[in-house]
Amino acid sequence: MTNTLVLLRHGESEWNAKNLFTGWVDVALSEKGVEEAKRGGTLLTEAGVLPDVVHTSLLRRAITTANLALDAADRHWIPVARHWRLNERHYGALQGKDKKQTLAEFGEEQFMLWRRSFDIPPPAIEPGSEFSQDADPRYAGEPTPATECLKDVLERALPYWQDAVVPDLRAGKTVLVAAHGNSLRAIIKHLDAVSDEAIAGLNVPTGIPLVYELDDDLRPTLPGGRYLDADAAAAAIAAVANQGR
Amino acid sequence: MTNTLVLLRHGESEWNAKNLFTGWVDVALSEKGVEEAKRGGTLLTEAGVLPDVVHTSLLRRAITTANLALDAADRHWIPVARHWRLNERHYGALQGKDKKQTLAEFGEEQFMLWRRSFDIPPPAIEPGSEFSQDADPRYAGEPTPATECLKDVLERALPYWQDAVVPDLRAGKTVLVAAHGNSLRAIIKHLDAVSDEAIAGLNVPTGIPLVYELDDDLRPTLPGGRYLDADAAAAAIAAVANQGR
Repeated sequence: MTNTLVLLRHGESEWNAKNLFTGWVDVALSEKGVEEAKRGGTLLTEAGVLPDVVHTSLLRRAITTANLALDAADRHWIPVARHWRLNERHYGALQGKDKKQTLAEFGEEQFMLWRRSFDIPPPAIEPGSEFSQDADPRYAGEPTPATECLKDVLERALPYWQDAVVPDLRAGKTVLVAAHGNSLRAIIKHLDAVSDEAIAGLNVPTGIPLVYELDDDLRPTLPGGRYLDADAAAAAIAAVANQGR
Repeated sequence: MTNTLVLLRHGESEWNAKNLFTGWVDVALSEKGVEEAKRGGTLLTEAGVLPDVVHTSLLRRAITTANLALDAADRHWIPVARHWRLNERHYGALQGKDKKQTLAEFGEEQFMLWRRSFDIPPPAIEPGSEFSQDADPRYAGEPTPATECLKDVLERALPYWQDAVVPDLRAGKTVLVAAHGNSLRAIIKHLDAVSDEAIAGLNVPTGIPLVYELDDDLRPTLPGGRYLDADAAAAAIAAVANQGR
């Protein structure tokens, strides 16, 4: 018997569309993002992959994506768990900044290090500044970060994976994780044992469910899993690769 | 110290608009219902009543109402629990039938008995018929009904109230219950010790949060609670009373 895991990255947010660093700033989906989320649910239905439980971050772009996708798949009624450990990478002092301006200000080398290096976080966000989450009640009393690199995301996401997601998989449930580019990359790095170097080149397209069948040791029976719309996923991944040129 | 409970009846559904008996048939909100749900969230924000946890039924009109209201109140990230014991009254063989046709077929006396009596359920729904929930995976293995009167709703809702809602209240949380006309009437009957006769005349308007402060014995400090838009609630209640004439 295999265990089924579905990873779903939220659709376009209002700040993706505006080209701002978002991180933990809690912006809504754009209209395009709403449509992506609904289509994600339709793809689940068409593939007959029906989640029994959903895990989300505490950010509305992932929560709304899960709500819309599950409604489209007629699974809106399944149990829900949410945790900040599934949040997007905290972008530190870059949160709220324009990506082009940041590139011009700091130069391409520094910019790419912050965006793509495994272990170099941006400068920490100033406590009490406009895009800080210090006063946000959803994180009260939690050991939340002031900036993160992907390594930090991995280290804070894995305890949730082990303590909350793995027990659902072990119980034979089909588990949906609706989250973010970097929290999903962290989970994929763990599942597929991707190296610190290779993970820089791995991108997860938005809104296309990525299905893993896991064996009894929770190792993927097919490394990398399978996207429910493989052509659309390949096109989205190629577009991101071309952006970098 | 008091405990805060918020009851929220879902907004207009597609079948309310079409005047069909709905019960456990899982129809979506109408556009008007979507707006009602968002406005419910705005009322919560304006009143500073911020839920720490939400309980819903397994039906999408209540689930979507909770999702939209909590998003509008910036509380989309709170823990969620769902249970069929908060579902609308099961309308038995009447589910899916037109209300006017049913009135013409069975006469006003029988019609009003099914709609408003405390302890007379409609005929049971035929297993396997179009609007039955026999094959619905969300109820698999659960002791779900084939028809219900309000007394039945009370008897199946109270165990959930005691086992799931009361512990959250006792823990000092502000609790939102997003549900249906009859499951909320059952909870109100219990809280305010409404008689079997008087409950027939009690209606809960859609989309307007009803706030109860409960003392240490979980008795309302203000019988009947308070609606966050008292004028709109009074107008909606008067409109329902006039419908019956």
